[in-house]
Amino acid sequence: MNGTLTLYSYWRSSAAYRVRIGLQLKRLPHEIAAVHLLRDGGEQHGEAYQALNPQELVPTLKHGQRVIRQSLAILEYLEETFPDQPIMPATARDRARVRAISQMVACDIHPLNNLRILQFFENGWNVPQPEREAWVRRWIQLGFAAVESLLADNPSTGEFCEGDLPSMADCCLIPQVYNARRFGVDMSEYPTIERIDRRCLEMPEFDLARPENQPDAPPVTAPA
Amino acid sequence: MNGTLTLYSYWRSSAAYRVRIGLQLKRLPHEIAAVHLLRDGGEQHGEAYQALNPQELVPTLKHGQRVIRQSLAILEYLEETFPDQPIMPATARDRARVRAISQMVACDIHPLNNLRILQFFENGWNVPQPEREAWVRRWIQLGFAAVESLLADNPSTGEFCEGDLPSMADCCLIPQVYNARRFGVDMSEYPTIERIDRRCLEMPEFDLARPENQPDAPPVTAPA
Repeated sequence: MNGTLTLYSYWRSSAAYRVRIGLQLKRLPHEIAAVHLLRDGGEQHGEAYQALNPQELVPTLKHGQRVIRQSLAILEYLEETFPDQPIMPATARDRARVRAISQMVACDIHPLNNLRILQFFENGWNVPQPEREAWVRRWIQLGFAAVESLLADNPSTGEFCEGDLPSMADCCLIPQVYNARRFGVDMSEYPTIERIDRRCLEMPEFDLARPENQPDAPPVTAPA
Repeated sequence: MNGTLTLYSYWRSSAAYRVRIGLQLKRLPHEIAAVHLLRDGGEQHGEAYQALNPQELVPTLKHGQRVIRQSLAILEYLEETFPDQPIMPATARDRARVRAISQMVACDIHPLNNLRILQFFENGWNVPQPEREAWVRRWIQLGFAAVESLLADNPSTGEFCEGDLPSMADCCLIPQVYNARRFGVDMSEYPTIERIDRRCLEMPEFDLARPENQPDAPPVTAPA
C-alpha cells in the first residue's frame, strides 16, 4: 500500500499529539492538515471534516485514499503497515502491557477531559471554571496514580514505559503529562511518569511532535 | 503459555461483558471471579482487587500468573495468544476499522457513563437523576450516530460490524446497546446497529455472555 500519509491534527489535541509522536518515532514522512477546534465554532463540525470523521473529533489519518480513525487504531495501523522502527514490543504479554497503559490514558483519563466535555459543562450545566478544572485534575490524578503504580518498581519498566525503547504507551503518556501540567497537576506525585516524560522529551521525535512545534500553533509573542 | 483463564467480572459491567463475549467466541474455557461493584462500597476498591488492578475497575484477566488489564488489551491478548476462532479480520485496513469502531465505544462513549462518573455526579456535584440519565443518553446518542454512519451503506459491513464474522467491534457494540436500552435510548434511530445487535444475540456465544446469564446476576423474581 503506497500513498501519502496526511494527519488531520490540532496542535493542542492530545489524541493528535499521540499520533504525531508515532509518526516521528517511525520516521514516516507525512503532511499535517490542521483542523482548528475552536475557530468558527470548531472546524471539526464542518461538513468537509464530518464526512471524513463522523465523530467530529481529531485525529484522522489518510493513507492514500484510506481513512483511519481513532488515535490508537491509527498507531496500530501504522505499526502493522510500516513495521520498521517498531512502537510495539515483541511478545503478546508485553504488547498487552503497552496497550493497557495506552488505554488507561486513552479510555479512562482523556475522554473525560476532552474539549467537548468541558464545553458541555460550561454551556449545558453552567459548571463554574474552577470546578471544571478540578474535574480535569481529578481524573488525571486518579489515572496517573494507577499508571504510576504499574510503572514503579516493575521490571518491565525501563527508560520508557516498556523497556528501553519508546512504544505506543509513551505516545499516549507524554501528551497526557502535557495536559496535566496545563491544568496544574503536581507531577512530583508520579516520579516514574515524570522520569519517563523527561527521557522522552530529550528525543527529537517527541520534541517535533510537541504542540508548540506544530504549524498551526499560535505564534509565541516575545516579551516586550 | 498454559494456565487457567480467570476473568474478574461484574454481571452489569459493559467492559467485562465485552471480554465475556470474546472468551465465548474464542471457545476458551475460563472461570469467572465476581467483583461486586456496589456491595460494601464496591469490592473493586478492596485491597485484594486493588493489588490486581490499581485502577479499581473491572475487568481484569488472569492467565496463569499473568495479569492483563483493560478490556480491549485483554481481547487483543486473547487473539494473539489463542489465534483459533479469530475475532480480528485478516488485513491491516480491516483491523483498523474494527479497532476504530471498538474505540468509538470503549473510549468515547462508555468511560463517560461509567459507574464512577455517575457516582461522582450524584455525590460530588449533586446532579439530579434525570440530568444524570440525560447525560448518559447524550453520549450514547452522539457516539451511536457516528458508529451508525460508519456502518450503514458501507461495503465492509456485513452481518456483523466487519463482514460476516463477529469481531472485537461486535464485542464492544453489543454491551453498549444493552446500556443504551437500559437508559431508554431509542434504538430505532440506528437501524444498522439494531440489525447487528439482533444478529449477535441469536448466537449462543453472545447469549451466554449477557448480564442476566452471569453467575453473579441477581435472581429474577417470578411474578406473583
